[in-house]
Amino acid sequence: MTTDAAAMLAVALDEARLGRAEGGIPIGAALFGPDGELLGRGRNRRVQDDDPSTHAETAAFRAAGRLRGYGRTTMVTTLSPCWYCSGLVRQFGIGSLLVGEARTFHGGHDWLAEHGVRVTVLDDPACEALMREFIAQHPALWSEDIGR
Amino acid sequence: MTTDAAAMLAVALDEARLGRAEGGIPIGAALFGPDGELLGRGRNRRVQDDDPSTHAETAAFRAAGRLRGYGRTTMVTTLSPCWYCSGLVRQFGIGSLLVGEARTFHGGHDWLAEHGVRVTVLDDPACEALMREFIAQHPALWSEDIGR
Repeated sequence: MTTDAAAMLAVALDEARLGRAEGGIPIGAALFGPDGELLGRGRNRRVQDDDPSTHAETAAFRAAGRLRGYGRTTMVTTLSPCWYCSGLVRQFGIGSLLVGEARTFHGGHDWLAEHGVRVTVLDDPACEALMREFIAQHPALWSEDIGR
Repeated sequence: MTTDAAAMLAVALDEARLGRAEGGIPIGAALFGPDGELLGRGRNRRVQDDDPSTHAETAAFRAAGRLRGYGRTTMVTTLSPCWYCSGLVRQFGIGSLLVGEARTFHGGHDWLAEHGVRVTVLDDPACEALMREFIAQHPALWSEDIGR
């Protein structure tokens, strides 16, 4: 992992851990600009806000506010993005996607790569451990969050 | 158009017109349950809330609250859903999609049909007229909303 990727993932992982501490689903994300500047960060808020629409990636996207042009931005997320969040990345033309891990959930990152997004799967053990622990402890909540 | 479809589309169209009256992007949506009961409704809120993440479909989905199982629900939207909103429909397994029109914007409804969603395009003139008027008056805002 490059230093830049590690630093970006650290922000997403921090969000995921904040989510866990709140009793929520521990997935975090952040959106960075072309020079590595943080544009927005967020975490899944299904439990905290009783809001099924706030996934980590949509929270980070919202936090970045209204922007014109996402081609030079990077979305980093602790977990492979579900179809909902993959659709967000594709629709807005987010240029790069860093995925913490895709072992506990395989979302739409291959599809995004096929459609021109620069995708890197970091295979990060800390992201994976966080999700494995959560899924083992809250299987029904996890199923709810991904519509299973 | 069946009576049921017309009644459901009327709710989405009402939301779209509310959005137009607020100076927003005139796209509305609603989620209905298996017996035609309204679960949630909403509209694009990019302008109203300065929130790029609230599309009509995500607003309706959020308004419905946390549910277990979307297979017997119907999402109705005045406009073909963008990738972001199509991803929402696919991820949560929303069983049916009613699209007001797909002439002014062709989103992911074919992709959803390929993946088992029951898709009906209603080709409704009122939905189309609303979007044509909006796009002509606010082309930059429309481009912003779909990431162009």
